[in-house]
Amino acid sequence: MPSPIRVAILGATGAVGTELLELLASRNFPLADLKLLASPRSAGKTLEFQGEKLPIQVVDGSAFKDCDLVLASAGGSTSKRWAEEITKAGAVMVDNSSAFRMVPEVPLVVPEINPEAAQNHQGIIANPNCTTILMGVAIYPLHQIQPIQRIVVATYQSASGAGAMAMEEVKHQSRDILAGKTPQAEILPYPLAFNLFPHNSPITDNHYCEEEMKMVQETRKIFAAEEIRITATCVRVPVLRAHSEAVNLEFATPFPVDLAKTAIAKAPGVKLVEDWQKNYFPMPIDATGQDDVLVGRIRQDISHPNGLDLWLCGDQIRKGAALNAVQIAELLVERGWL
Amino acid sequence: MPSPIRVAILGATGAVGTELLELLASRNFPLADLKLLASPRSAGKTLEFQGEKLPIQVVDGSAFKDCDLVLASAGGSTSKRWAEEITKAGAVMVDNSSAFRMVPEVPLVVPEINPEAAQNHQGIIANPNCTTILMGVAIYPLHQIQPIQRIVVATYQSASGAGAMAMEEVKHQSRDILAGKTPQAEILPYPLAFNLFPHNSPITDNHYCEEEMKMVQETRKIFAAEEIRITATCVRVPVLRAHSEAVNLEFATPFPVDLAKTAIAKAPGVKLVEDWQKNYFPMPIDATGQDDVLVGRIRQDISHPNGLDLWLCGDQIRKGAALNAVQIAELLVERGWL
Repeated sequence: MPSPIRVAILGATGAVGTELLELLASRNFPLADLKLLASPRSAGKTLEFQGEKLPIQVVDGSAFKDCDLVLASAGGSTSKRWAEEITKAGAVMVDNSSAFRMVPEVPLVVPEINPEAAQNHQGIIANPNCTTILMGVAIYPLHQIQPIQRIVVATYQSASGAGAMAMEEVKHQSRDILAGKTPQAEILPYPLAFNLFPHNSPITDNHYCEEEMKMVQETRKIFAAEEIRITATCVRVPVLRAHSEAVNLEFATPFPVDLAKTAIAKAPGVKLVEDWQKNYFPMPIDATGQDDVLVGRIRQDISHPNGLDLWLCGDQIRKGAALNAVQIAELLVERGWL
Repeated sequence: MPSPIRVAILGATGAVGTELLELLASRNFPLADLKLLASPRSAGKTLEFQGEKLPIQVVDGSAFKDCDLVLASAGGSTSKRWAEEITKAGAVMVDNSSAFRMVPEVPLVVPEINPEAAQNHQGIIANPNCTTILMGVAIYPLHQIQPIQRIVVATYQSASGAGAMAMEEVKHQSRDILAGKTPQAEILPYPLAFNLFPHNSPITDNHYCEEEMKMVQETRKIFAAEEIRITATCVRVPVLRAHSEAVNLEFATPFPVDLAKTAIAKAPGVKLVEDWQKNYFPMPIDATGQDDVLVGRIRQDISHPNGLDLWLCGDQIRKGAALNAVQIAELLVERGWL
């Protein structure tokens, strides 16, 4: 039994922050202390943790002393603002933002894929982007059998990826549309209710959006396979909190479908969900609240002798963010890598 | 000016049927007579056409005499049931169902792509599946410049593809979920509101569903290019009436993005919609009610030297069904091919 540690959650009031709280409780994380940090607008509020009301503290320079681990989920600029204070205070930061993911000396970790990468951290470990994690756990079991050469992926991303307020906005928009009113878009760039749109992260020089380039670059880093060729189309859909992805894989030689199913069925963090008779496959409503990424519709690609198609759904807030961060924290504690 | 013709709509009360009526009116189709046919449960009802109330007649064996053209949109079994009566009566059937699409002697026509195929009809011309039409008009301009070798497509299909009642069901389900109630699924196999699922058409022997195989087989037939390799993942999303598709194309040699944009911008039936500065691209709410398929996000595939990625949205009921059928009818009238 590892010694309990002192944890702070930075961004405790957000969609991911509240899920972190829930997971620390339900997974009996060995806590010596838990500090909830947020911006001044949450000052004075409390959040419940294991029957106790914990106060939310405003983050400042002294907030990180007496912390062993900081779970940061307050966005990239907040992570950048406090990273030095956190590491100088001697704490390890597991960062859910994109701020440090592609920094070469920062490990980018999915515990089912590359746990060893966490060992050599220098105070910061990055949690990958949601779409990357969900695809990664699903296809890594195949990559271990035969290296993936190319990925063509299209995503169906829920509102939760844009935060708790975006989830509320989709509900408001739906109510307005059903009442014959014009929906308002304040958090999201366009109405999402009964609509969808290409992911609105900034467009990069190669005309992919940042969200798409995260899938490309982060997958390569986590798999330690810079040679994988990846193209992604990321799309926001009117679903609340689980993401889906249609994934096309190419290998150097044919990959038997049965072998793929067996590998996925026994891999950690994924669950094979397919009933071909009943036409039942992974759906966001079934993935919601689940730890595992649901994978199904695994089939031989009829357009490529060495291709496979598959379909997955995973809870964006859980395995796509908070759960993966807690798993990294558990890994650090268990292996003594703090 | 071609002579007016006598038209019947078979399945006049459905989502596509009512759109056919609207299009015949708004496009000033040269009508000598218009007969509305439906099943007995619509007997006695009327539908408005150019300010007049037209009675709905129950379809029977004598319904097709005195018709030059029948626009059929009542599903495959109804089309099969009446095809012989229609052609024996001397009328030409433009069939919106999948019943005859892959019959070798039945032309499968998208007027922007293969109008000449309609000339040699033997009484039946098939209207392709919605997803096939929308993708076809978008990518055919590129195929004409350099033959497409492979397509990897993922669809985002609206409720309208499952009919008018499915559209209503999604609204009901949304209301129920927003009110904290459990949504009911009667038309659709699973709740679609705030959810999505792989297209529930029957699974074929190769583990693709029928909807996916329509995209594969129909595209090849319309393009007269059996050699194109195609894989599709079809997904139903909680959008009302416009479909979206993420399309990855492979060519034999690199396809310059600027050339692709120019070709699509000047092609009939498509509209280039992309504002990279504003991150504004095709969306279902913008495609709804439009004749053109909106195409954007055209970019060099970074995973393949000869690849292009693009994104499209099109009105499923309009160009995906009713408009294409009316365009076929116009083609037959204009060229004297009835």
